[in-house]
Amino acid sequence: MTLTQIRQKSLLGLKELGRGEIESILNRAAHWESHPEKVNPVLTGKFVANMFFENSTRTRFSFEVAEKRLGAEVLNFSAAVSSVQKGESIYDTVRTLESMGIDAGVIRLKPNGILAELAEKVNVPLINAGDGNNEHPTQALLDLYTMRKQFGDLKGLKVAIIGDILHSRVARSNLWALTKFGAQVVFCAPPNMQAPELGAPIVSIDEALKADVIMMLRVQLERHESGMIKSAEEYRQQFGLTVERAARIAPHAIIMHPAPVNRNVEIDDELVEHPQSRIFPQMQNGVPVRMAVIERSLQ
Amino acid sequence: MTLTQIRQKSLLGLKELGRGEIESILNRAAHWESHPEKVNPVLTGKFVANMFFENSTRTRFSFEVAEKRLGAEVLNFSAAVSSVQKGESIYDTVRTLESMGIDAGVIRLKPNGILAELAEKVNVPLINAGDGNNEHPTQALLDLYTMRKQFGDLKGLKVAIIGDILHSRVARSNLWALTKFGAQVVFCAPPNMQAPELGAPIVSIDEALKADVIMMLRVQLERHESGMIKSAEEYRQQFGLTVERAARIAPHAIIMHPAPVNRNVEIDDELVEHPQSRIFPQMQNGVPVRMAVIERSLQ
Amino acid sequence: MTLTQIRQKSLLGLKELGRGEIESILNRAAHWESHPEKVNPVLTGKFVANMFFENSTRTRFSFEVAEKRLGAEVLNFSAAVSSVQKGESIYDTVRTLESMGIDAGVIRLKPNGILAELAEKVNVPLINAGDGNNEHPTQALLDLYTMRKQFGDLKGLKVAIIGDILHSRVARSNLWALTKFGAQVVFCAPPNMQAPELGAPIVSIDEALKADVIMMLRVQLERHESGMIKSAEEYRQQFGLTVERAARIAPHAIIMHPAPVNRNVEIDDELVEHPQSRIFPQMQNGVPVRMAVIERSLQ
Repeated sequence: MTLTQIRQKSLLGLKELGRGEIESILNRAAHWESHPEKVNPVLTGKFVANMFFENSTRTRFSFEVAEKRLGAEVLNFSAAVSSVQKGESIYDTVRTLESMGIDAGVIRLKPNGILAELAEKVNVPLINAGDGNNEHPTQALLDLYTMRKQFGDLKGLKVAIIGDILHSRVARSNLWALTKFGAQVVFCAPPNMQAPELGAPIVSIDEALKADVIMMLRVQLERHESGMIKSAEEYRQQFGLTVERAARIAPHAIIMHPAPVNRNVEIDDELVEHPQSRIFPQMQNGVPVRMAVIERSLQ
Repeated sequence: MTLTQIRQKSLLGLKELGRGEIESILNRAAHWESHPEKVNPVLTGKFVANMFFENSTRTRFSFEVAEKRLGAEVLNFSAAVSSVQKGESIYDTVRTLESMGIDAGVIRLKPNGILAELAEKVNVPLINAGDGNNEHPTQALLDLYTMRKQFGDLKGLKVAIIGDILHSRVARSNLWALTKFGAQVVFCAPPNMQAPELGAPIVSIDEALKADVIMMLRVQLERHESGMIKSAEEYRQQFGLTVERAARIAPHAIIMHPAPVNRNVEIDDELVEHPQSRIFPQMQNGVPVRMAVIERSLQ
Repeated sequence: MTLTQIRQKSLLGLKELGRGEIESILNRAAHWESHPEKVNPVLTGKFVANMFFENSTRTRFSFEVAEKRLGAEVLNFSAAVSSVQKGESIYDTVRTLESMGIDAGVIRLKPNGILAELAEKVNVPLINAGDGNNEHPTQALLDLYTMRKQFGDLKGLKVAIIGDILHSRVARSNLWALTKFGAQVVFCAPPNMQAPELGAPIVSIDEALKADVIMMLRVQLERHESGMIKSAEEYRQQFGLTVERAARIAPHAIIMHPAPVNRNVEIDDELVEHPQSRIFPQMQNGVPVRMAVIERSLQ
């Protein structure tokens, strides 16, 4: 394979991915979702390394299940954040695994900008499992998959993303992907968590509740010491999806969240498994979506 | 499967399990113990998640070997205690894994009462690998298996369990299971480690040494700051199985311990691999016993 | 198998291993390196436990890839150093895994002297993956393999090992193995990092640079509080392979390092992937070498 071919098999983000490519991943995910066999000899003899330089039990498990359902050999690497702080060490670790013969790497990391650099230097396809504040493409793909399953078509769909937009790679990947399909994305966030440079309209929480998809983001209040929001309860009052607010969303609207959820902060406890919530179905959809992504990287 | 059927495939404890069910697990374990093939395609394509919210290298390994010997796909989850303290987070993690398509979950946790609640809410069989101070059914099953192998019949067998009864799920599961088979269980413990509400006679250490089975429990002195026992050496002197005491047990009696052992605290170093000790054979028996339990949950 | 046979299948060090045995491992590694199939059903149904009582992501991964390429079932154990400090606990853990039916154990530990004792007591072959300051045989085997690939014959080869010889098991295993093949090993180290008892000549850095193989060791300055070297930069100036020094090595010479590298301490950043560097090829060679070692233990 040439370097260009390897890079085409990587999945670094959705901003640069064509609409046709995204559709073909979603279609393949649908194939895997309805596939009766749990484990399939598609990637027998292939090694996939999950390299998590930032912890995430859920995302790692979702990838691991996907890899094993495709019959791949799985290597799990979780670095204590302190031991691998610099891009240099991340590079050495990825090159080490490449030297040992992995066929693809799933990678999650905190510092911005390193993933793009890495992908220029290593000779195996890389799949972004969370890249700083930049992109989280497989999360957005499973979000699109979940919306498509619900509404059939993404065109014209109104999607409100509510919470810490500034630090959210989920918001960015969703914005860039949904826009390609003609969906309308609006953001709703406290003043210190907005990212106007992304170009999506910023609306009030009341306006956001009129959308077809109410996507709540996980808020990490500890990040915002000098911010305007002082407590979890204050955040909930102003931007949380409370039971009272959920009663006002459209009957056809769905509630989404990338998880893990801070119950009673960004979303009330009772709403997590509400009939309109798709939070656990999102996790369910994550497996076939990631199967499609991994398969694409290794074909 | 209906919810009732799923719950019947769970193994939450031995208190509620019928004698016939226990016997059938022990018989199936005997089948696996003598089975010549190490890995068997019994659970091919099934995913089992080991969800350890409380650390235990030994128990997790024993389950992992059992699962792999049955040909299952294994997912290992170990949560730092600090990151998952509340039942809510445990629930979200288990539901997440359920959403990702696991077929059974092995679960170990510290807080009491959560496991029973969980089993009401999730739709996969759960196997208790240690539940607070409540039950540790697979440990007791391997203990019964070890006794049955030694003595043929459990009826009339005298079993003395010595140590921190108050905090011991091993003592509880053994008491409840052994009683169903007509064995006589007595407890021996310092005053601050007793649990008279369990109803077993409390005897002196000299009396306990007359039993057919001398089961020592791991003592965690750090739990008992205000207790009557002030040091490991004082504990050893009063309740430990010393070489001197071991010389007084019956020639046909066996020494057991759930491990890991505090050498020279509850049991003297020289006794761990004494001819009458079954401590390492217990670990060996754990694998076929857990194979039988997992197989039962997934059939 | 008799105990003697089990011990012959163990790989504790190269000091005691015959030249013929080493050659046959290297030849078998060459077989695996050129083998087209990634996963091979050589050790189907065999369980190998990686027991790392001292952390090492790279070495563990290399063994894990090797084990999986041979079709073995893999169990990974990593103990927090604090939880397993004493030899007694290490022994109990290894005996536990033995009881559960593992067929071989790969073991890495910090305290000196425990591995030899362990190998006398347990009944499964053990493979040394790093033993205190004593030996690291698979690293030296992959080093020899890398040299043999480069130079054809080891006889007469001049190998300079530069750095913290005193604490280096890599230096010891290489010295003992290379000597058997007629290579000439010299050491170069600051006064407080030398080990004259090993018998290899101690040379200046300028002299060391004349060798055919320039093998840099990882330096851990935190170990040398009272030493003569006060900073990473001072170490680099005196003993590091700087770009300036690398310009003086012979055109046919190669640069080696067991990794992980402290860039710009023992070796300059620009040299890690220099055309004469074999650092990443060493890691690549580690997999077939470890396949050969594991296969040898389980045949």
